[in-house]
Amino acid sequence: AEPFSQLPPILHRLHEAKAFKGLSFESLAKTLGRNEVYTASLFYGQAKPTLEDIAGLSKALGVDEQGIIDEVGSHWWPNRGIGGAIPQDPVIYRLYEGVIVYGHPIKSIIHEKFGDGIMSMIDCKVNVDRKPDPKGDRVVITFDGKFLSYSQN
Amino acid sequence: AEPFSQLPPILHRLHEAKAFKGLSFESLAKTLGRNEVYTASLFYGQAKPTLEDIAGLSKALGVDEQGIIDEVGSHWWPNRGIGGAIPQDPVIYRLYEGVIVYGHPIKSIIHEKFGDGIMSMIDCKVNVDRKPDPKGDRVVITFDGKFLSYSQN
Amino acid sequence: AEPFSQLPPILHRLHEAKAFKGLSFESLAKTLGRNEVYTASLFYGQAKPTLEDIAGLSKALGVDEQGIIDEVGSHWWPNRGIGGAIPQDPVIYRLYEGVIVYGHPIKSIIHEKFGDGIMSMIDCKVNVDRKPDPKGDRVVITFDGKFLSYSQN
Amino acid sequence: AEPFSQLPPILHRLHEAKAFKGLSFESLAKTLGRNEVYTASLFYGQAKPTLEDIAGLSKALGVDEQGIIDEVGSHWWPNRGIGGAIPQDPVIYRLYEGVIVYGHPIKSIIHEKFGDGIMSMIDCKVNVDRKPDPKGDRVVITFDGKFLSYSQN
Amino acid sequence: AEPFSQLPPILHRLHEAKAFKGLSFESLAKTLGRNEVYTASLFYGQAKPTLEDIAGLSKALGVDEQGIIDEVGSHWWPNRGIGGAIPQDPVIYRLYEGVIVYGHPIKSIIHEKFGDGIMSMIDCKVNVDRKPDPKGDRVVITFDGKFLSYSQN
Amino acid sequence: AEPFSQLPPILHRLHEAKAFKGLSFESLAKTLGRNEVYTASLFYGQAKPTLEDIAGLSKALGVDEQGIIDEVGSHWWPNRGIGGAIPQDPVIYRLYEGVIVYGHPIKSIIHEKFGDGIMSMIDCKVNVDRKPDPKGDRVVITFDGKFLSYSQN
Amino acid sequence: AEPFSQLPPILHRLHEAKAFKGLSFESLAKTLGRNEVYTASLFYGQAKPTLEDIAGLSKALGVDEQGIIDEVGSHWWPNRGIGGAIPQDPVIYRLYEGVIVYGHPIKSIIHEKFGDGIMSMIDCKVNVDRKPDPKGDRVVITFDGKFLSYSQN
Amino acid sequence: AEPFSQLPPILHRLHEAKAFKGLSFESLAKTLGRNEVYTASLFYGQAKPTLEDIAGLSKALGVDEQGIIDEVGSHWWPNRGIGGAIPQDPVIYRLYEGVIVYGHPIKSIIHEKFGDGIMSMIDCKVNVDRKPDPKGDRVVITFDGKFLSYSQN
Amino acid sequence: AEPFSQLPPILHRLHEAKAFKGLSFESLAKTLGRNEVYTASLFYGQAKPTLEDIAGLSKALGVDEQGIIDEVGSHWWPNRGIGGAIPQDPVIYRLYEGVIVYGHPIKSIIHEKFGDGIMSMIDCKVNVDRKPDPKGDRVVITFDGKFLSYSQN
Amino acid sequence: AEPFSQLPPILHRLHEAKAFKGLSFESLAKTLGRNEVYTASLFYGQAKPTLEDIAGLSKALGVDEQGIIDEVGSHWWPNRGIGGAIPQDPVIYRLYEGVIVYGHPIKSIIHEKFGDGIMSMIDCKVNVDRKPDPKGDRVVITFDGKFLSYSQN
Repeated sequence: AEPFSQLPPILHRLHEAKAFKGLSFESLAKTLGRNEVYTASLFYGQAKPTLEDIAGLSKALGVDEQGIIDEVGSHWWPNRGIGGAIPQDPVIYRLYEGVIVYGHPIKSIIHEKFGDGIMSMIDCKVNVDRKPDPKGDRVVITFDGKFLSYSQN
Repeated sequence: AEPFSQLPPILHRLHEAKAFKGLSFESLAKTLGRNEVYTASLFYGQAKPTLEDIAGLSKALGVDEQGIIDEVGSHWWPNRGIGGAIPQDPVIYRLYEGVIVYGHPIKSIIHEKFGDGIMSMIDCKVNVDRKPDPKGDRVVITFDGKFLSYSQN
Repeated sequence: AEPFSQLPPILHRLHEAKAFKGLSFESLAKTLGRNEVYTASLFYGQAKPTLEDIAGLSKALGVDEQGIIDEVGSHWWPNRGIGGAIPQDPVIYRLYEGVIVYGHPIKSIIHEKFGDGIMSMIDCKVNVDRKPDPKGDRVVITFDGKFLSYSQN
Repeated sequence: AEPFSQLPPILHRLHEAKAFKGLSFESLAKTLGRNEVYTASLFYGQAKPTLEDIAGLSKALGVDEQGIIDEVGSHWWPNRGIGGAIPQDPVIYRLYEGVIVYGHPIKSIIHEKFGDGIMSMIDCKVNVDRKPDPKGDRVVITFDGKFLSYSQN
Repeated sequence: AEPFSQLPPILHRLHEAKAFKGLSFESLAKTLGRNEVYTASLFYGQAKPTLEDIAGLSKALGVDEQGIIDEVGSHWWPNRGIGGAIPQDPVIYRLYEGVIVYGHPIKSIIHEKFGDGIMSMIDCKVNVDRKPDPKGDRVVITFDGKFLSYSQN
Repeated sequence: AEPFSQLPPILHRLHEAKAFKGLSFESLAKTLGRNEVYTASLFYGQAKPTLEDIAGLSKALGVDEQGIIDEVGSHWWPNRGIGGAIPQDPVIYRLYEGVIVYGHPIKSIIHEKFGDGIMSMIDCKVNVDRKPDPKGDRVVITFDGKFLSYSQN
Repeated sequence: AEPFSQLPPILHRLHEAKAFKGLSFESLAKTLGRNEVYTASLFYGQAKPTLEDIAGLSKALGVDEQGIIDEVGSHWWPNRGIGGAIPQDPVIYRLYEGVIVYGHPIKSIIHEKFGDGIMSMIDCKVNVDRKPDPKGDRVVITFDGKFLSYSQN
Repeated sequence: AEPFSQLPPILHRLHEAKAFKGLSFESLAKTLGRNEVYTASLFYGQAKPTLEDIAGLSKALGVDEQGIIDEVGSHWWPNRGIGGAIPQDPVIYRLYEGVIVYGHPIKSIIHEKFGDGIMSMIDCKVNVDRKPDPKGDRVVITFDGKFLSYSQN
Repeated sequence: AEPFSQLPPILHRLHEAKAFKGLSFESLAKTLGRNEVYTASLFYGQAKPTLEDIAGLSKALGVDEQGIIDEVGSHWWPNRGIGGAIPQDPVIYRLYEGVIVYGHPIKSIIHEKFGDGIMSMIDCKVNVDRKPDPKGDRVVITFDGKFLSYSQN
Repeated sequence: AEPFSQLPPILHRLHEAKAFKGLSFESLAKTLGRNEVYTASLFYGQAKPTLEDIAGLSKALGVDEQGIIDEVGSHWWPNRGIGGAIPQDPVIYRLYEGVIVYGHPIKSIIHEKFGDGIMSMIDCKVNVDRKPDPKGDRVVITFDGKFLSYSQN
């Protein structure tokens, strides 16, 4: 199903306005002064917009500010996570496959480089870049998250 | 359960020898002239070693080369994917959470930057780096995969 | 449930118009100058129509072009995958059974003929043909996908 | 896990002997006078060998014929289906993805070309071929199955 | 949930009209000149009605013929399978239990009587009869399906 | 996996002895004076043998009677149900498909013929017969179970 | 979700009327001359009301009799089973826990007292009673079901 | 699979000794001065034996007391719950069906008789009795559990 | 999806009124004279409000009292449990992770400190506090539940 | 199954030695100078012991230090998470129930007290205490975890 079908309805409105204006997340991110993935996450209910974000979105998209505030304003907190446990869309499945196949190797290397702990997915910046390559351009996805050490003393 | 409990037994031997010698995947990768995540993947049955890889592992770890060839030699092909559909280990779960939470935003941005297609998880290099940071060092995981365009004419 | 119940509503309109006009995917594919499975995939939200596809569909089916553009135009990207993880419809289940029963033999043969890698399901043409046979005509389904070699250096 | 870990142990022996002799399924199929996918299916317990098949395998692989008969002889019937409901190995997953993404389009076309019925996965020949292509060779997988019409009078 | 809640709405109308007229599937089957289970399957979207079936249903039930054609006419193909993977209703669960408990014994006997193959569920007639018995009448359910032999040469 | 891998080991012995003697369930059923499906169910741990059954099996198969009694004698009660919730083997899956597709139609007809209740799967005889047919012989599976009326007064 | 959200809408009306009138299932059961659990089951679509039940409910609750007949009259048959496979509500989960923890001990004792067979859940009376106890009153739930012997001769 | 296959091995020994001596749980319960279901639960690892229970079991069954203490002595705590989430054995499934079908009616009645709370499955006595009945003897299973009131002030 | 989408609609109204008034659960709890988690649970349908709670909520939030009574008044009982079996939202997942990782250690310690039994989740107070810490403030969640001893005599 | 059946075998040895010596986790924790839940987690493979922990365990339990080092020494990293996704043991299930029932209320309160973020389960201390109470002693479980703020700028 469409990924925003169960999100607050105003987010559907934002998607429509963005499509109507022909804006990309990249340009909206610049307008908001925000990270691009963070900006896209706002549209999928996966991040909490600040009032500045809401003002910026309202202005850039021509959507009534109060309407946005009413649904995803300061009282609203994202219920993060979209879709079933195993993604079916091929773009997202490939990321999932990366976890299933390379999860244990990555885990071992994190432990060897940092010790016992995890890469935070909360204090984490995500980037998606296009890298030109004569054999075919490449997608470069970066997760840059703070290492958190297990502490149980 | 231990992640290599269902892998070819020789891989368990390689893990033991590596532990006994106190080697890291980073140093082994340098010895083999290979990417670090690729090197770790060999130990988890998630990549297919070349004969050069096997010779290098045998020498570095002091494990009989023919024994490695017998189990994961040229006749052997990895059955990729370890563990259940939803990871329970917190290190690996955080990566999974990244897919569940940021999958749709990432997908949208890939489409906006490249069009209809995917980032290949086959022609993909994975890196795990340590980035010093005064507020706490950071894990930087990079997926660098070729963009593949949908072709259905 | 009906397979298009969760797709963009315009696709339901396209199905209705096609039924009303008594058109087959085969004839629509010829009209569009497209592969037949690709054409059917458009109706199930499993492929992204070009603006030419949309113009062609609008003309052939008598559905307002702008209405199609509004829902599945250039801003729209398919969320591929329909239905539950294990198909229940017998036609589709038989394909699934082919994967469950012949998946490992097929994998082994791909490796023997090509080495370590996969058949792309992105750069892949799918055909469904009718082959006359005195003992009963046969369905011939062909997946013709580019081999992608694992690259982890 | 290794795909033959729960199959009759003699099949594991056949895999080992095949690896030791350096034989491919293609050459074994020619020796047996059999389809290549069928031949590979014998090694994964997904097809029932005839006594001629067993004699041929015994001779080609140097494995005691009676030992094969004892485990997978005329009294034995395959319990078809290997692995979990959703494949994790990328090669097999891509086939599964083909079913999830193109299943409904394929179903519609089968109905339009044949009426209400299915493509048999029992009376079905499966082939895996290598098609040279200057942009990269292609895997061509063909399912050629008898159409079976629903009959409920 | 009610089993027809996700079926084409006209089928719900047919159920209502049948209830209002107090007709049984047995009498409707005679009117249509059809098998009783087939007739019931039409009401649950599990079989494809012919135009004669639709005309007969329209007449017997007093439901507008064109309305039926619009939803489940010649352009419509059943998406077979209703409900979750494991039935909860006790009547249907008992059938499922029959498969879970007696499936392997039945499979063995089919193989011993016919060889390697299956009973077709496509070319299969299903009957439900009432057999008088002084100790309590009995339900007799019969699956009469063509044997299909595995063919992989 | 092989269906008897988790059953009492003596049942595996009975399967082997039956294979070695080349006996069918049909002939064993005649020897025991029992229904054929019941007889096969004994071999899969899905029915409880009487001491007469055990004596008969011991004699017919040449397996030590006390050994059978020790494992599946009067103290032993079957834990019925084999395999996962959704069968993968095509023979058994077709039966399951019968339940998923025809379950609701069958349920409706049982109610119309008998009222509110079920067909017992406990007081139920199961038969598998071969019916000659010039267009291809047919498998006829019959479930003959007592109707049980819901009683809640 | 509310347990009656997918039941015939009239049942929701009955719940509302019962709440509005402040009636308990206990008093309604007395009015109907019925078992209390049976009476509650009518409100959850888990039992089939007789016409006398419907008349009684109509009178006691002030709900139009024909409206009840239209939805759950003689043409209607319960589709028994509410909610997911594993209950989440703590009251119902405790019953489920009773099955998971004490199921095998109960099974063993049934076999020792009765032989090979089951307690019918069809011919079964269920009662819920309050037993005064100085240490805290107790709930006493009784399942009183006919023993059914396995019959496979 | 056999229900004790994953329990402490000594429990398997207790089952064997009980079978060898031909003792019932009923007689063992009398010997121990314990409830019958409790006694059976000890054999399935679903209750924690006291040292008196162990001494009594050792004497009644002729199994070395220290051996029992070593495995399920005072240091051992039951990990309650046996088997998958949905029982397949028909005896246990019927109990599960009772929960799925009558769970909500029972819950409503508990609330009406006691208020907001649950029947404890911890402070709960379970009994299985045989009730003679000319129409066929009946199994009577009783859960007698303390009512626990929700307390959140 | 939003967590209250399947709850009684009045609860959605309460959430809206609370947001509009800018009230926190902490302040509402003080107004009601109630525990904070209990107060929040009322808004998610996870606790049963008393009539005093309803009066207090009505007054504090300006929502019609009768409207609240109509939906969640004395006739209404919570159906506890929200969302799927495995939480996806990171806040709630972390709690789940606590159970998966520390469940067995906690169980062992409860047994060592109390014997065989459980911590009640019914007679249990839950608190969420903010603890200042120079290295970053901490969340302190406390479950304070009555120990219940297993009683099976 | 026993919770340590799939853990490194040395942990089973530690459990046995602890039982043989009659030591509690509380006393071991004091010996090690460690938190009690952390200490218990070491025995279940849910925490990584330091070399000091290992030395302390070896001494307190009389288990060979090198043997512990060989299996869970500095090269070893815990694969955290034990058992299935939904716990069956009642002690652990009650914790799970706390998450399912109170997860959303807790989440709301965390957000109101801290803003958008989570309670870390990595930098988290867990305590299990016994609180005397005349109405029955109480278990007090405390999760004390650092608040982590979402950072996506």
